[in-house]
Amino acid sequence: MPTVVTNIARAGCKATDALARYGVATVHEAQGRTGLMAARMQPIFRGPAISGTAVTVSVPPGDNWMIHVAAEQCQPGDVLVVSPISRSDSGYFGDLLGTLLQTRGVRGLVIDAGCRDTDDLEKMGFPVWSRAISAHGTVKETLGDVNLPISCGDIVVNPGDVIVADNDGVVVVPRLNVAKVADAAAAREKREEGIRERYTAGELGLDMNNMRPRLAEKGLIYVDQSDLAGN
Amino acid sequence: MPTVVTNIARAGCKATDALARYGVATVHEAQGRTGLMAARMQPIFRGPAISGTAVTVSVPPGDNWMIHVAAEQCQPGDVLVVSPISRSDSGYFGDLLGTLLQTRGVRGLVIDAGCRDTDDLEKMGFPVWSRAISAHGTVKETLGDVNLPISCGDIVVNPGDVIVADNDGVVVVPRLNVAKVADAAAAREKREEGIRERYTAGELGLDMNNMRPRLAEKGLIYVDQSDLAGN
Amino acid sequence: MPTVVTNIARAGCKATDALARYGVATVHEAQGRTGLMAARMQPIFRGPAISGTAVTVSVPPGDNWMIHVAAEQCQPGDVLVVSPISRSDSGYFGDLLGTLLQTRGVRGLVIDAGCRDTDDLEKMGFPVWSRAISAHGTVKETLGDVNLPISCGDIVVNPGDVIVADNDGVVVVPRLNVAKVADAAAAREKREEGIRERYTAGELGLDMNNMRPRLAEKGLIYVDQSDLAGN
Amino acid sequence: MPTVVTNIARAGCKATDALARYGVATVHEAQGRTGLMAARMQPIFRGPAISGTAVTVSVPPGDNWMIHVAAEQCQPGDVLVVSPISRSDSGYFGDLLGTLLQTRGVRGLVIDAGCRDTDDLEKMGFPVWSRAISAHGTVKETLGDVNLPISCGDIVVNPGDVIVADNDGVVVVPRLNVAKVADAAAAREKREEGIRERYTAGELGLDMNNMRPRLAEKGLIYVDQSDLAGN
Amino acid sequence: MPTVVTNIARAGCKATDALARYGVATVHEAQGRTGLMAARMQPIFRGPAISGTAVTVSVPPGDNWMIHVAAEQCQPGDVLVVSPISRSDSGYFGDLLGTLLQTRGVRGLVIDAGCRDTDDLEKMGFPVWSRAISAHGTVKETLGDVNLPISCGDIVVNPGDVIVADNDGVVVVPRLNVAKVADAAAAREKREEGIRERYTAGELGLDMNNMRPRLAEKGLIYVDQSDLAGN
Amino acid sequence: MPTVVTNIARAGCKATDALARYGVATVHEAQGRTGLMAARMQPIFRGPAISGTAVTVSVPPGDNWMIHVAAEQCQPGDVLVVSPISRSDSGYFGDLLGTLLQTRGVRGLVIDAGCRDTDDLEKMGFPVWSRAISAHGTVKETLGDVNLPISCGDIVVNPGDVIVADNDGVVVVPRLNVAKVADAAAAREKREEGIRERYTAGELGLDMNNMRPRLAEKGLIYVDQSDLAGN
Repeated sequence: MPTVVTNIARAGCKATDALARYGVATVHEAQGRTGLMAARMQPIFRGPAISGTAVTVSVPPGDNWMIHVAAEQCQPGDVLVVSPISRSDSGYFGDLLGTLLQTRGVRGLVIDAGCRDTDDLEKMGFPVWSRAISAHGTVKETLGDVNLPISCGDIVVNPGDVIVADNDGVVVVPRLNVAKVADAAAAREKREEGIRERYTAGELGLDMNNMRPRLAEKGLIYVDQSDLAGN
Repeated sequence: MPTVVTNIARAGCKATDALARYGVATVHEAQGRTGLMAARMQPIFRGPAISGTAVTVSVPPGDNWMIHVAAEQCQPGDVLVVSPISRSDSGYFGDLLGTLLQTRGVRGLVIDAGCRDTDDLEKMGFPVWSRAISAHGTVKETLGDVNLPISCGDIVVNPGDVIVADNDGVVVVPRLNVAKVADAAAAREKREEGIRERYTAGELGLDMNNMRPRLAEKGLIYVDQSDLAGN
Repeated sequence: MPTVVTNIARAGCKATDALARYGVATVHEAQGRTGLMAARMQPIFRGPAISGTAVTVSVPPGDNWMIHVAAEQCQPGDVLVVSPISRSDSGYFGDLLGTLLQTRGVRGLVIDAGCRDTDDLEKMGFPVWSRAISAHGTVKETLGDVNLPISCGDIVVNPGDVIVADNDGVVVVPRLNVAKVADAAAAREKREEGIRERYTAGELGLDMNNMRPRLAEKGLIYVDQSDLAGN
Repeated sequence: MPTVVTNIARAGCKATDALARYGVATVHEAQGRTGLMAARMQPIFRGPAISGTAVTVSVPPGDNWMIHVAAEQCQPGDVLVVSPISRSDSGYFGDLLGTLLQTRGVRGLVIDAGCRDTDDLEKMGFPVWSRAISAHGTVKETLGDVNLPISCGDIVVNPGDVIVADNDGVVVVPRLNVAKVADAAAAREKREEGIRERYTAGELGLDMNNMRPRLAEKGLIYVDQSDLAGN
Repeated sequence: MPTVVTNIARAGCKATDALARYGVATVHEAQGRTGLMAARMQPIFRGPAISGTAVTVSVPPGDNWMIHVAAEQCQPGDVLVVSPISRSDSGYFGDLLGTLLQTRGVRGLVIDAGCRDTDDLEKMGFPVWSRAISAHGTVKETLGDVNLPISCGDIVVNPGDVIVADNDGVVVVPRLNVAKVADAAAAREKREEGIRERYTAGELGLDMNNMRPRLAEKGLIYVDQSDLAGN
Repeated sequence: MPTVVTNIARAGCKATDALARYGVATVHEAQGRTGLMAARMQPIFRGPAISGTAVTVSVPPGDNWMIHVAAEQCQPGDVLVVSPISRSDSGYFGDLLGTLLQTRGVRGLVIDAGCRDTDDLEKMGFPVWSRAISAHGTVKETLGDVNLPISCGDIVVNPGDVIVADNDGVVVVPRLNVAKVADAAAAREKREEGIRERYTAGELGLDMNNMRPRLAEKGLIYVDQSDLAGN
């Protein structure tokens, strides 16, 4: 039965907003290398990182009707996450729907299908991550679901989870983990800053992380090229 | 028999030129969602929309000889449309052929294969839509056809049809439909302007298009998350 | 046995540096249309062409440990070339490793896998050519090889070979051919300049290269569209 | 935190077993065209349909350690469902693990990654649906999860759901819907039998389903080819 | 305007039937290496070659309504050729439609989209060439065209053209060329028989076709491995 | 300069022949998980494993001339390994060339491009591993190299190396490692036999390999589903 779940619990605003600052790679590492969407989910234009709470939409192939239904469920700070139940490269979303969502305070769209009007969306500053850019229009004939768990970019997204997206891709943080992940990301960023300084000073990762003994133990050997016979 | 068709009938200039203004998504919708090339056909650099009349070229895999033959058939306002008879990612086209075509007034290239010298082509302002960017050179050994119907980007293109291309992709308008499609596109654009204003004012598509009764009739139900047992 | 080859012979600096000026397409043609990596190897941001001597790395899927080992083998003017032994889209490389390599004078990275932190790498001006952009982190558990011949982008790369990379892709020049290829590229560039001028003046390739007799001999025919019956 | 969920609730045996009889297409239609995995999930050999209850496994790229952990959670009638957290074509599974699972009464494997030893698995009669056939071995270094919800073949799979798989692909039936879906599938199969007989007798779908008025209303026109001018 | 063209001219029966005997590779060579569909068009089961006259169908993504419309236009000896106007992997066709078409004497289906019920279709002996196997069902909401030129497998197909399909793929022979192509195919097959005998007797292609002088002229050199310094 | 290297050193017959018995997965593991070609290299029909010494061929896209040149360099026990210098799906190889090679005692073909006449090749028992099945013919215009190192299926192949291929794919064993790899494969097979027996007797890998302490140390936790709150 096609279902819209209303009044979903969302991750807290403050921790959600903080995650955009760390970016996708750091957040993904901070939660143990989980939650990253597949590499096919790419931004339609390069811009700053965003974060927001997920409103999830399951749509039929080539049919964008449920995006209108989902729009009503969105509130400021949300990110719309849309996935077709069978692969479709059609352009489910363009500048009109972008206007509708932006007016409601939605921060962006993540869609495992196609998007169009990419120039207008860039001018409006409404960011989209999609698997394809396609102008192919969709129909409004068949229902789907809003705010049930979906698979998008090969990852399970629950409504109210946090989406972080930047030019590296898209990562999903489960609703109840957001504060913990934000802390871990902050710690990681600080640690990386120290590493960056030592690398800039000319130190090698081999020495900084004391890798040489473990490499030797695993059997790595060094051979001078002039000692190699033939090839 | 390898054939060059000369003196092809072309769509009228005025309607052809008008189509660039509406862009690919609008033109494709205006002709009933037909004629859009596959999403793999992407611009090598982002730039303004173009429109022009098609000179079609069927080429062997890895052989660009026929592009020279086709160049002679081009006149100002044309767009060259090239498709190999077997998949090839080779770079059939670079800045030299771009210079040759630009000098003849050709507005751009659409090729279901590879293109190279993308920096130079961007500097020259000669736009290309292709399935691949590849520097791999081609030979000049085998013939093909010019100005016969071809399949490019999964769409049939007849010589003299109109090509509209922008950062969303490429759409083909049959020669005899151009005026009618231009009118429909203008009407659609006007209608979209009204929609945009209402969306900006905060109206929902659900209300503007009176979708609620039809959604209910199809069986859509709304459930408060707190009423869902477990997940 | 996992092996690091040290003190590799490298192509000469002067010829190596010269190759960047000609760009990938010209260099590839100048060496007889060989050595071009597959079209999937694309720059993570558009920038100027680079050239440099290859330090090669063979890595396990999802494991970037050997990049640290390879960094020590790099010297100013090198380009790091990395290939997994089984397809992996993981993000082996980000801004920290970019800092480490840039500090050592490495000019760029070519990797037949994923890369992340693309914004930071662009800000740093450290160019990367990769098959995917992915934030997915890697582990440091399993060894590979440094400076043995590898297959990257479907091409054999030997340590010390020259890598030339620009917005069209990546080409490999065998170490001992570099001077000869640089000469051929210079000659080709000069010849192309002449062609460009004649094209700009309105000459056709058909005439400039005297193609008409050979086209006729191969059986090309010209038919006026008005003489075609039906279609 | 890497987690194994034990003592999962499973769909009932009888309804689960019944679903194999109807096959993937019918089951998928019977639950409203939902739950079908992406077309990339293909059988490694053609055989009969299976159904069983899902034990879900989330694995790192190129690391099959958790399959050993999951095996202990399997009981007769289960199907193992495995998905990497980042795309990997490695061969996570071969005839040894097949022997281990078959001994425990597991009916098959669905894996959104690679599989190997396909000849031996066919001889043993242990069916596998995978995205790739690859002999590339995996390591045992990094943890994942067992019996948490996963995304496999672009579909959310919860532990205890029913998997139905045949030569057309794989479909997932949520645990609590199984009896209802089995009834709907039986009804559909019966209806299809009636349709098959009428088609065999020469009736058209146009007439059997009274499609002609609706086609006309939507604007379909019929034109005799001899009345078409030109093309 | 969605259109069905009736009473199409078809290629002659006798020449059409003859083409199946030669197979796809020979027919494709016999007409000058044109007309071959893309390699993605593969048989759903291995069986004998077929040939027949094309009834063409243009369908919306995920909508198979027009196949019912097209069925009425089919007569014994036809092959149905279906292409969506935007990429779709849905399963447009299964055993019920197979029964309907087989009853009307249709020899097979070529579809640039998905197909399902592959086991039943194999049992019935109704061959299909498709780009995907997918159980995903389709709707019946939107019109398309029957018997207008379409692009299928990257090739233009006109109604009444001849389709030849076997385990190597699918080739299209324009209606008016069929007799000529059949003759050329017969000649080619005879010539190949002679070549096969000479190869079996141990002759090399190098000698049989007197290739050595032309190879030398193009600059091929032979070097004994022991004379190569290093590798 | 296009070059044919003659009188190449080949791996020894006995060890080469032995490798087919172990199959691709075992050989690949036995040499430390290296040398496996990409998963796109698939058999055109299922048959027994083969092994043989590589004669390598580098070919232009869409041009199979060099296969004739390479045939002369083949001797009984060889496997021909062919790779285009730019991606091509054309059908470089069919039953005629299969006859030529089979007559010379060649055991099979590995080609990172297309193959055709698959039915005839199956009837002849001449096995082929390829990236595509395509009837598209090739020309004979441009030279390449025979018996230089090539990249095929993303792996470096040197002439005289051993190729092992079965229904799981293709693996390359460097010429000088063959005896050592054969020994390691034999040892591995024996060890696997012991594992298989213990699995058949119901033992778990967890216990057999004493994995539990290391899993616990890495932080794996077990939770009863009834103790999980909500999802």
